[in-house]
Amino acid sequence: MKKYTEMTKEELRKEQEKLAAQFEAYKNTGLKLNISRGVPCEQQLELSMGMMDVLHSEADYMSENGQDTRSYGSLTGLPEAKALMAEVMETRPENVIIFCDSSLNIMYDLISKSFTHGVMGSTPWYKLDKVKFLCVVPGYDRHFAITEYFGIEMVNIPMLDDGPDMDLVEEYVNNDAAVKGIWCVPKYSNPTGTVYSDEVVERFSKLTPAAPDFRIYWDNAYNVHHLDFNHMHVIPEILTLCREQGRPDMVYKFGSFSKISFSGSSIAALATSPANVADVTSQMKIQTIGHNKINQLRHVRFFKNAQYVMMHMAKHAAILKPKFDLVKMILNRDLAELGIADWSEPDGGYFVSFNTLPGLAKKVVGMMKDAGVNMTPAGATFPYGIDPEDRNIRIAPSYASPSDLDTAIQLFTVCVRLCSTEKLLNESN
Amino acid sequence: MKKYTEMTKEELRKEQEKLAAQFEAYKNTGLKLNISRGVPCEQQLELSMGMMDVLHSEADYMSENGQDTRSYGSLTGLPEAKALMAEVMETRPENVIIFCDSSLNIMYDLISKSFTHGVMGSTPWYKLDKVKFLCVVPGYDRHFAITEYFGIEMVNIPMLDDGPDMDLVEEYVNNDAAVKGIWCVPKYSNPTGTVYSDEVVERFSKLTPAAPDFRIYWDNAYNVHHLDFNHMHVIPEILTLCREQGRPDMVYKFGSFSKISFSGSSIAALATSPANVADVTSQMKIQTIGHNKINQLRHVRFFKNAQYVMMHMAKHAAILKPKFDLVKMILNRDLAELGIADWSEPDGGYFVSFNTLPGLAKKVVGMMKDAGVNMTPAGATFPYGIDPEDRNIRIAPSYASPSDLDTAIQLFTVCVRLCSTEKLLNESN
Repeated sequence: MKKYTEMTKEELRKEQEKLAAQFEAYKNTGLKLNISRGVPCEQQLELSMGMMDVLHSEADYMSENGQDTRSYGSLTGLPEAKALMAEVMETRPENVIIFCDSSLNIMYDLISKSFTHGVMGSTPWYKLDKVKFLCVVPGYDRHFAITEYFGIEMVNIPMLDDGPDMDLVEEYVNNDAAVKGIWCVPKYSNPTGTVYSDEVVERFSKLTPAAPDFRIYWDNAYNVHHLDFNHMHVIPEILTLCREQGRPDMVYKFGSFSKISFSGSSIAALATSPANVADVTSQMKIQTIGHNKINQLRHVRFFKNAQYVMMHMAKHAAILKPKFDLVKMILNRDLAELGIADWSEPDGGYFVSFNTLPGLAKKVVGMMKDAGVNMTPAGATFPYGIDPEDRNIRIAPSYASPSDLDTAIQLFTVCVRLCSTEKLLNESN
Repeated sequence: MKKYTEMTKEELRKEQEKLAAQFEAYKNTGLKLNISRGVPCEQQLELSMGMMDVLHSEADYMSENGQDTRSYGSLTGLPEAKALMAEVMETRPENVIIFCDSSLNIMYDLISKSFTHGVMGSTPWYKLDKVKFLCVVPGYDRHFAITEYFGIEMVNIPMLDDGPDMDLVEEYVNNDAAVKGIWCVPKYSNPTGTVYSDEVVERFSKLTPAAPDFRIYWDNAYNVHHLDFNHMHVIPEILTLCREQGRPDMVYKFGSFSKISFSGSSIAALATSPANVADVTSQMKIQTIGHNKINQLRHVRFFKNAQYVMMHMAKHAAILKPKFDLVKMILNRDLAELGIADWSEPDGGYFVSFNTLPGLAKKVVGMMKDAGVNMTPAGATFPYGIDPEDRNIRIAPSYASPSDLDTAIQLFTVCVRLCSTEKLLNESN
């Protein structure tokens, strides 16, 4: 197949007609599909059903610290839950606070606390004229929603092949005291699937922030979410590097079992320096008496340690990888030769990041919706929902069945091609 | 026995000597007891163990709205969980948002949100020179800790026999626009056990606040926590009354299963007007994708409806009432005739409120600690930890075994009597 950009107007018009007919045919079938969010499918949820049997009415509910998990106490989490989470998060139990069911909630609460009470004694952000966050783009819409909600100015930092543009990150962080944080998903990034290189992680640890209350929001959501356990990516552990650099307090690292056990009903954690742990606990003790420790115990009894977690995640991968492979195959088959798009081929995480020709993302997602397929809104992967080039689309293959996914992605390539022919025809007028 | 105030110095001295010897005897036994907090005892926790068997690996995890509870979704809670909570909270499901495991966390988040973003479009509190909360005293220390944490000025409102001093409440709320809220535990109040009278509840509903963003924080923590189910107290439903008065948005009402099922691992809820529900949800959707729905389903499957909850609570009462009766018996036996103290005899809730002669509370609690019995710190039942008369002590009988409780309360009356003789002797010098 010829590249679209090398086609004559006549060829393009023919192509457009053919694709328009295909689109109509799909549309008329009355599809109702969803590839919008990183939601595990039912088969994945079934993997953790054994967790429902480890605690029953005759079971032992005592924690190793003598805590009856059915009662109040252990504000920052059970010791065995911290140990499990520390292994999975590649850190030590004393650095870990176990929270409730959502790591997003931890991030929100940290930003909210920084806004109302500052960070480790710093000026509360509400008293400052301007607070900025760096946002690696494309990125995770729920991160951006939190900073937008608190009126924090968001600065786009382009994602390169090996992680964020670190020249730019260093320039901002080391010189602008209004910059208080950066949102990072360092491994199998949402949505690009990027794995930060060793050099990038090291450069993060060597930042010398102008603001003493600057923190790296290191959302390692996909740390053990490899698609092929024979080809895992491992990245340097950021807390260790920062400690070695003499800036142990510079990172908040987040982890969650939401895509390991049950989404929204699991446990989530913050891993950070002892001084940050103390600072966060001083707020936490006002907010709650403690989080659900029975659920912590349930996770510990079922998952035991990081080895078992990895074995469990390999089962997730066995379900997910064929879906990602299917997406990759269709995109390559239908688009690779046309010169009108590029996309990520991730080794882990939950997303494929797709770029159309400039100015087409909204249109493509709109057409998909018209035809009954729900995608993440175009622009959502950028702060304020504004993709400056209107190119990026996030594809979430996990939830749909293989046949639904097949249909959705085939339709998607039809929409991308159709919009591209229209654009090229318009431009040639 | 003579009243202490009617004793001669000689008689008081003799009494003092006798009590000092008793105190020493207790102290030398090396006690290690805790009557400090409203923590259910193990026998109470056992009542809910059946909840551990209702959801297992073969069980049905679907909610009636088609939600797979093991996955993301249903931000404000499962419909059946709302229905259950609505029954227990005497309101309608559409007024209910189900949160995580702690109603305290809901209160904190509401105050935090009001501080950062205001209430239904009002000016965020951080932009105001002064924000005040009314605090019914004695009251719940964790309420006061939240308002203190946010720098909110707390104003003491005396608790009378039938509820707060409503003349004072009306004066403040209706005239001072800085007054944004009042902390209330309307039934079996913490610590006094007071049940607000119908008239008091009605006067609450008829408040005409100077501040449009004034809210009543109605922490109905002990709504179904009667000690004798043949003699329940029921109070008028505040949301209904406020709606009838044309001020539907004036109340945030809180409920929790923490002292129904498992403390800290249950479900908690906010009940409020549809407009408040929308306002709160607009914040909540930034903070989380949703709370633990499996735990919601577990509660629904086990507790079914309010009738079953009441039957369950009667079992709690059967464990708790003998403990409260024991406390009452000992206090009456050892102190009733002496004219040196008064105390509450509650029909529900978790506490006995005890008043010494002025200036003795800290001393008594200190002596108890010296002898190995941990009590709530004196002053904790007042804002800033300051009991102006240093009289109030909170007794929490639930957690200790009957024999431990017996020892603790007997020692307590020894300390109260000993401190009183010393005070009276000092005053007569």
